[in-house]
Amino acid sequence: MHPPSIQKLIDLFSKFPTVGPRTATRFVFYLLKLSKEEIEELISTISKIREKVKLCKSCFLPFENEGEFCQICSNASRDKTLLCIVEKESDLLSIENTKKYKGLYFILGGTISTLKKQRAKELRKDKLLSRVKSSEFKEIIIAINPTTEGETTALYLERLLKPLGKKITRLGRGLPVGGELEYADEETLGSALEGRK
Amino acid sequence: MHPPSIQKLIDLFSKFPTVGPRTATRFVFYLLKLSKEEIEELISTISKIREKVKLCKSCFLPFENEGEFCQICSNASRDKTLLCIVEKESDLLSIENTKKYKGLYFILGGTISTLKKQRAKELRKDKLLSRVKSSEFKEIIIAINPTTEGETTALYLERLLKPLGKKITRLGRGLPVGGELEYADEETLGSALEGRK
Amino acid sequence: MHPPSIQKLIDLFSKFPTVGPRTATRFVFYLLKLSKEEIEELISTISKIREKVKLCKSCFLPFENEGEFCQICSNASRDKTLLCIVEKESDLLSIENTKKYKGLYFILGGTISTLKKQRAKELRKDKLLSRVKSSEFKEIIIAINPTTEGETTALYLERLLKPLGKKITRLGRGLPVGGELEYADEETLGSALEGRK
Amino acid sequence: MHPPSIQKLIDLFSKFPTVGPRTATRFVFYLLKLSKEEIEELISTISKIREKVKLCKSCFLPFENEGEFCQICSNASRDKTLLCIVEKESDLLSIENTKKYKGLYFILGGTISTLKKQRAKELRKDKLLSRVKSSEFKEIIIAINPTTEGETTALYLERLLKPLGKKITRLGRGLPVGGELEYADEETLGSALEGRK
Repeated sequence: MHPPSIQKLIDLFSKFPTVGPRTATRFVFYLLKLSKEEIEELISTISKIREKVKLCKSCFLPFENEGEFCQICSNASRDKTLLCIVEKESDLLSIENTKKYKGLYFILGGTISTLKKQRAKELRKDKLLSRVKSSEFKEIIIAINPTTEGETTALYLERLLKPLGKKITRLGRGLPVGGELEYADEETLGSALEGRK
Repeated sequence: MHPPSIQKLIDLFSKFPTVGPRTATRFVFYLLKLSKEEIEELISTISKIREKVKLCKSCFLPFENEGEFCQICSNASRDKTLLCIVEKESDLLSIENTKKYKGLYFILGGTISTLKKQRAKELRKDKLLSRVKSSEFKEIIIAINPTTEGETTALYLERLLKPLGKKITRLGRGLPVGGELEYADEETLGSALEGRK
Repeated sequence: MHPPSIQKLIDLFSKFPTVGPRTATRFVFYLLKLSKEEIEELISTISKIREKVKLCKSCFLPFENEGEFCQICSNASRDKTLLCIVEKESDLLSIENTKKYKGLYFILGGTISTLKKQRAKELRKDKLLSRVKSSEFKEIIIAINPTTEGETTALYLERLLKPLGKKITRLGRGLPVGGELEYADEETLGSALEGRK
Repeated sequence: MHPPSIQKLIDLFSKFPTVGPRTATRFVFYLLKLSKEEIEELISTISKIREKVKLCKSCFLPFENEGEFCQICSNASRDKTLLCIVEKESDLLSIENTKKYKGLYFILGGTISTLKKQRAKELRKDKLLSRVKSSEFKEIIIAINPTTEGETTALYLERLLKPLGKKITRLGRGLPVGGELEYADEETLGSALEGRK
């Protein structure tokens, strides 16, 4: 139905996270209404992130500064004895937004699904191990989502890191803001009771 | 539109929690299809809970045993040094279902809304105070929903109970089972970080 | 966990339409907070609908008047040449609320699921046939939900009524108020096109 | 928080329909993981639609063929006596997908909100008028969403086109596939009754 170039762009947008063919089609119709200048700005901005953005050698956060390390890793005032392992970039940003954490990060790059154990290979396992070995960390916080996949990954990381003899912690479980006891699952409510303070 | 006796029953059912006029109407049509025996069973069961069920003198849980105390308060194996204050019966049941709590309870009977501070009168404030005074509790757990109203109520209870010199705790905050960092609010994620272990 | 009389009432309320055990439990706690007078009012109202409410001999709507016919069937100003077949009482009320229909009704009492064809026995099939045969209807409107079960039932009714030689119609299909072409299924949008006017 | 080139791309993606800052951020992280070849393919495809895709002179559908008219307008087998006015491209595609319409189209380019009547200027009003005047249409179908804005727009179009003396119709209203009488609003159910057949 669609002309080939439109269909091709729909297919490319459909690979974007959370985007299906219907939304991808709306994106293309949106682009068709932009001015020539707006399209050129979009294209040049996409090109630029490709050229300018690097991955931090230490935590793997994308960044744009000079040098090899991101703005967090190169910030002298961060607490170098604390490492927080997260699955992905947006989780790091969520933790930064709380303004409650002053340590360093490591972006793992994914989780292990219970079914696809081989995906463990894709994780930055070796990079994590060598970073922890060559560091002065006193505590390693595994800040992975408490989902089924996340739990599998957290257990895997605990086993991986235990031989290094560092203190390993996990995010506290409990009721979220606005949560209700009546609708909480038993495990969450049990954790909330055990974690009372 | 409805005959008066049907309309009256719709009005009565509409006062049930979570029930609006449409659902109340469905309830009435459901009752109209029941046999004479089924209606009589419903009526006699409603009458019986009125006659047989009492409120526990200690925690205010409805119960049906002999005596003045419910099956939890009269259970010798419960830990008498722990008191858990909940808003309502169903919250007590949720905590029992976790099988992680062996202490006693107190059902407060409601929460204080920030707007209607006078509602504090309806709470079993005096009963709570006299129970805590005459007890051997070492810890009082305020297990009220972490909603806006619940927080107001918890602060109120803390101020009320503080002069009695007991340890006062609250349920742990954090990510619930299945929760994701990316969608957690900053306060919940901050609590999860602080409550790591 | 619950005392037996409370558990029994939870079980009875759980059979109400749309009610699960959690909501049934809330209903019981609600009843436990009512005054003696309020409970007696509820019980007597339930008893009364059992005693006073009859099913209309003609359309099967529950009613409370003297005589054998409901307020619609006994209303001389209704159009006696039009019959509207609905699945259940609440569908009749929905149509009355539009104030666009002045004919008579017949409540079928259910639908035929494609899987459980035997349920056809439970429908008031014979009553419908004898009513249509002994009437002066010029048009019979099958106003059954356009769901899968409803469609099966409507086809069944069409085949049942066709030999009687009356005009048989169905509710118009199309976009509902507030609907959007982009999210409409192809069949609905096709019907909206064919039914344009 | 974000490096400037990433922030700029987040801002540009945030203008895409249905995309907020959180999703825009995920898009950027997705792009950062693509290979150089994949980024180049995306950029060249975006450039191409800009170069190759034209708007049909007749109906304003984007297309890529030779000539000035889209594949529908230049299709000799389409019914040239029927015109269907839609708000946007995706509505045209929805109607094509029904395979129930063989006439021509006109994409209006928007709707009139009741508040911003001046937006009427942005619509292709004059283009529509001159097309209808110079054509052999026997029926004009206003296929605008039956939302509040859509209704205002449809009334506006009716008044605009009436002096031209063509037959003007609208999409049929009624229950959608899978809809239920009990949850239908009165206007929709009223239309379904009036449109019975």
